[in-house]
Amino acid sequence: MIATQSIPTLASFVQDGWVTPVNGLVDIPSAIDGRIVARASSDGVDFSAAVRFSREVGGPALRALTFHERADRLKALAAFLSERKEQLYTLSADTGATRRDNFFDIDGGIGTLFAYASRGRRELPAERFVIDGDTEALSRGGTFMGLHVLTPLNGVAVHINAFNFPCWGMLEKLAPTILAGVPVITKPATATAYVAEALVRLIVEADVLPKGALQLVCGSAGDLLDHLGGQDVVSFTGSADTSDRLRNHPVIGRNAVRFIAERDSLNAAVLGPDATPGTPEFELFVKEVVREMTVKTGQKCTAIRRVVVPRPLEASVVDAIGAQLDKVAVGDPRRDDVRMGPLASLTQRAAVREAVADLLAEAEIVAGDPLHATPVGGDMAAGAFMAPVLLACAEPLRARRVHTIEPFGPVATVMPYDTPEEAVAIVARGEGSLVASVFTHDDAIADALVFGLAPFHGRVLIVDRDCAKESTGHGSPLPGLVHGGPGRAGGGEEMGGLRGVFHYMQRTALQGSPARLASLTRKWMKGAPAPVAAVHPFRRDYEALSVGDTVETDSRKITIADIEHFADFTGDAFYAHMDEAAAQANPFFPGRVAHGYLILSFAAGLFVDPAPGPLLANYGLDNLRFLKPVSPGEAIKVRLTVKEKRPARKPDYGEVRWDVEVFNQDGETVARYDLLTMSARRGTTSSAAAA
Amino acid sequence: MIATQSIPTLASFVQDGWVTPVNGLVDIPSAIDGRIVARASSDGVDFSAAVRFSREVGGPALRALTFHERADRLKALAAFLSERKEQLYTLSADTGATRRDNFFDIDGGIGTLFAYASRGRRELPAERFVIDGDTEALSRGGTFMGLHVLTPLNGVAVHINAFNFPCWGMLEKLAPTILAGVPVITKPATATAYVAEALVRLIVEADVLPKGALQLVCGSAGDLLDHLGGQDVVSFTGSADTSDRLRNHPVIGRNAVRFIAERDSLNAAVLGPDATPGTPEFELFVKEVVREMTVKTGQKCTAIRRVVVPRPLEASVVDAIGAQLDKVAVGDPRRDDVRMGPLASLTQRAAVREAVADLLAEAEIVAGDPLHATPVGGDMAAGAFMAPVLLACAEPLRARRVHTIEPFGPVATVMPYDTPEEAVAIVARGEGSLVASVFTHDDAIADALVFGLAPFHGRVLIVDRDCAKESTGHGSPLPGLVHGGPGRAGGGEEMGGLRGVFHYMQRTALQGSPARLASLTRKWMKGAPAPVAAVHPFRRDYEALSVGDTVETDSRKITIADIEHFADFTGDAFYAHMDEAAAQANPFFPGRVAHGYLILSFAAGLFVDPAPGPLLANYGLDNLRFLKPVSPGEAIKVRLTVKEKRPARKPDYGEVRWDVEVFNQDGETVARYDLLTMSARRGTTSSAAAA
Repeated sequence: MIATQSIPTLASFVQDGWVTPVNGLVDIPSAIDGRIVARASSDGVDFSAAVRFSREVGGPALRALTFHERADRLKALAAFLSERKEQLYTLSADTGATRRDNFFDIDGGIGTLFAYASRGRRELPAERFVIDGDTEALSRGGTFMGLHVLTPLNGVAVHINAFNFPCWGMLEKLAPTILAGVPVITKPATATAYVAEALVRLIVEADVLPKGALQLVCGSAGDLLDHLGGQDVVSFTGSADTSDRLRNHPVIGRNAVRFIAERDSLNAAVLGPDATPGTPEFELFVKEVVREMTVKTGQKCTAIRRVVVPRPLEASVVDAIGAQLDKVAVGDPRRDDVRMGPLASLTQRAAVREAVADLLAEAEIVAGDPLHATPVGGDMAAGAFMAPVLLACAEPLRARRVHTIEPFGPVATVMPYDTPEEAVAIVARGEGSLVASVFTHDDAIADALVFGLAPFHGRVLIVDRDCAKESTGHGSPLPGLVHGGPGRAGGGEEMGGLRGVFHYMQRTALQGSPARLASLTRKWMKGAPAPVAAVHPFRRDYEALSVGDTVETDSRKITIADIEHFADFTGDAFYAHMDEAAAQANPFFPGRVAHGYLILSFAAGLFVDPAPGPLLANYGLDNLRFLKPVSPGEAIKVRLTVKEKRPARKPDYGEVRWDVEVFNQDGETVARYDLLTMSARRGTTSSAAAA
Repeated sequence: MIATQSIPTLASFVQDGWVTPVNGLVDIPSAIDGRIVARASSDGVDFSAAVRFSREVGGPALRALTFHERADRLKALAAFLSERKEQLYTLSADTGATRRDNFFDIDGGIGTLFAYASRGRRELPAERFVIDGDTEALSRGGTFMGLHVLTPLNGVAVHINAFNFPCWGMLEKLAPTILAGVPVITKPATATAYVAEALVRLIVEADVLPKGALQLVCGSAGDLLDHLGGQDVVSFTGSADTSDRLRNHPVIGRNAVRFIAERDSLNAAVLGPDATPGTPEFELFVKEVVREMTVKTGQKCTAIRRVVVPRPLEASVVDAIGAQLDKVAVGDPRRDDVRMGPLASLTQRAAVREAVADLLAEAEIVAGDPLHATPVGGDMAAGAFMAPVLLACAEPLRARRVHTIEPFGPVATVMPYDTPEEAVAIVARGEGSLVASVFTHDDAIADALVFGLAPFHGRVLIVDRDCAKESTGHGSPLPGLVHGGPGRAGGGEEMGGLRGVFHYMQRTALQGSPARLASLTRKWMKGAPAPVAAVHPFRRDYEALSVGDTVETDSRKITIADIEHFADFTGDAFYAHMDEAAAQANPFFPGRVAHGYLILSFAAGLFVDPAPGPLLANYGLDNLRFLKPVSPGEAIKVRLTVKEKRPARKPDYGEVRWDVEVFNQDGETVARYDLLTMSARRGTTSSAAAA
């Protein structure tokens, strides 16, 4: 609790130091009782210098690290914050957040850091660039090829966040951006900036991000956007109006500044006609709508605003939701007996009430009362408390406001439909949303609803009895899935695993000779030099292996006896190997042919170097294609080339990917694949023992 | 040749009919002699109705087709146009294009159609949606998962093109959009709209696209943008000014209309310090700069504008380029002895001359003369002829205009540099370009230049002696590579293979139970139902196989004798299989273990059904991982489940992907992989023969 006599002034963290404002201070009231909990202003911040600092100090420092090193920093930061999260919980109460709400904001934010740390290690290379997609053959002779790489933009990412998630909102943008190698200037919404500022103080204290990787602006964004260029990114979460104002800033269009917007939308939950009262899906639907209306007091851009139900089920739905809403205890979010805290501020409550009033032109209230509530441990005059309100709109296809006006609070509108196509049409009136959920256990209904809704949404959740226990719910964006949506939702995309990282990188097509592209990307490709190594590469430590190192084997003839013996030994007596007439009738084979697995096994027999050494194990194989059958009497030989190296999770080993090509006696390729091995690193026990 | 007495009026093709304007006609002059070759206006076009027609007729018709069906339409269209391209060649002469120029515009455009047709067949499923990326595990118990799908936007794509490539510009946008399943309204630049209109007349005549898939607007775009929403896309190629005006249209921001911009940029070619006179790279550099200055009379957004060379080589470069430019015959593009035609119009020539005059504040002319030329078969007063002009700027890091003013004609500026880092800094002054090319045969120089330039470019070409013969050149965007660039280049991306298709689709995360996601996506995933089939699925035709069909095999014990015999037979005597002490010293094995290939071979022995039948061949294997070693005395068994089906290129077969899991006697997974087979379709000879 902050005593009124010492109201803190929030500082900005720019150019590696804290700037405390003197002028232009804005009071920030508590949601619970309206007392002033902090003051904020960006007075004293030199935005031009801040942008320069990001570009000249933060960017180069981050780009000097590999993805794995950046991932390690994120992990250390997440662990540091995790141990100190109670500080943030305490501060957050004044935003109106209950403990359950804070779990989404604070634990959710830290969890996103952990998730990106883990993805960075697992899914990105120990390099400063990523290869995107496959190699493109650009010439007949194979001397000219193409591929795409992603490299970090040489600019700054400006993150502008909404008031409802001061922690998660900052961290879900920060994690992918830092992993990409791009420095951040983060600007929280002023209404809850005291939580965001405390979070940044912890991040600074953690001291794991390079200098200049993160700057914080509390208060207004001033002339920040004036300084942006084509290497910069603005990532915005908030209202359509603010988004529009920022996006139409002349610099954004002129310099093609990347602009990612995630705006509030009127998300829908759709009940399938099969989900009648008594089915698990009906129960789950009611529970989810109530949860979404009340978590964060409905102040979530992903919350359910439109409750789309089969007309015959409308009354049952309204009754069931109404009954559960009645039981929701509204009050002081610090109390254990309270389920829903106040809205963020009295201003916010006034806006929600006004939106409800606007909706009454097209809908009627069927549960709750926007003007009255009996807050537990709170006071309606001083605190922004409000009871949940359920509306119903009888003719949603003729209505406009219920699809366009969003009461950003504990309010939702029920809308009946007659056919799944009509349900889709109703939802589509929202002109694009972040998420829709579908409650059904019927294949045909799921198909019609999901593919109908998909083009209008960034995420579609299908809830049924099979997944309900583990479902993370309608309102929870997850690091591995895209968060964002078309149209009204802003057209942006965040997270979605590495997709969210790549938004901060530039995709560049590279064209050149295979030798040049292999040298640039540290990845061997066909046509690049493949020098036959003096020593069998299986006898080389991970470190001593070079991309391109090659072994070419002797050849081995495959006899009819080999084929018959292999069939007999393995039990694989497929007719193409065993029955000449039947094999000839097969459109792919000239007659009896060797088993594919026989070719693989003999190939290994040709290239394996049997004695102990740094090569520890063959742990897999990718992209195997049998390209030409091998008939009895033909001979095979193998070329094996180091294609890619990658440090393993344990420091003792490295993963090596080999390009393997098996040829017949005429030099034609009969099989091609990637072989995956684990090799010991220099000086490790395994390597030493083996040497 | 068009006689003056019958100047054609260009029509728009909207709502499946031709609309010929009456009012507001604009004269379009010939580049060669200034006579009026056509008149254009969009008078009479109801833009609101056109947008509705695309949405209500074209969209549903395209979305009803699978990707393969759309690809087939594109292929048929390409073939149709290919046979009639001479008509377009003839018309194009008046744009100033030589036969060589037309090859890029007309053949390049048709080639892009063919390329997307082929990609659609090869790289996309026979479905109406695409699965994007991997499945995401979202729960410990595996009952809740996620994945991403791409579905066509339910709107219209508005394509606004530049004057310089009336055919390629239209077709390179059309092909990926139609393949995505989204209808197009295409608006060519008026200056060369007579070629674009003729192209659309051919497309209409071809009658292979569904009704409403393509509409054409000749003349101004009127209030077209007013009618766009969040399911629509604007894809623009042209100047920064027009791009800005369109992008700042209130509807674009408000409705988050996707906006892809590809703008002119000041592309650079960089000569490496190793590429001294006498090296192949020096020669190639000079040739490429001259080619880029003269193809399309320099009117290409990808043309080389900045010629960045090591200071000591500057004089040699200027001499060599100057000598070649001297030999360029300027004149009537229809003549065989002419290498470079006129600019598009006298207005265009005046603009180029003005830009050159502006650059003279920072650079001097070292070859050519912007005001004088001796056109072969042409007249300087009536035709927009201009000689190529080479400038030199001594202090490029202190200059501004040479990096920002683009003379859109046969003009380039030489700029010296001292170090590779400085070369990058000079190029970066352009604030983002479509393409840069690097001429070097040195690994370290290539590394420094390419990774320095990459964040500022959509494409980087590295030319050296190894790829020169097959290089497609600095100025040629290719269907498989991204075309676009950050910052000044507009920030957009086109083509790049399927990437360009996906710009017209919505990515949506789907969450639900494995059963639900498998049913929706027609792709089996772990946790989804795997009913054991009554008949071995290898005995079922392609059509009769259902995703999820499963076979579970008996188990087989693997003995030490099996391992020794396998080693002896195949020659694979790796110590982990043959030497107990050495195997125990290996960090991954408990002692001697079975060969991975032995497990694979025995697994096949367990699941293969030997007699002839609809299963024709195992043609490959993907994502094999050995997850747990198998020790002598342990037993394996196999579960094989239909994961995905896909029609093969030949109508007689289908490709089936099987999920294979190999378990030990304790039910632990020891190996997992995708098995790829070719199965006969019902009633085909192969199937019948086998039955």
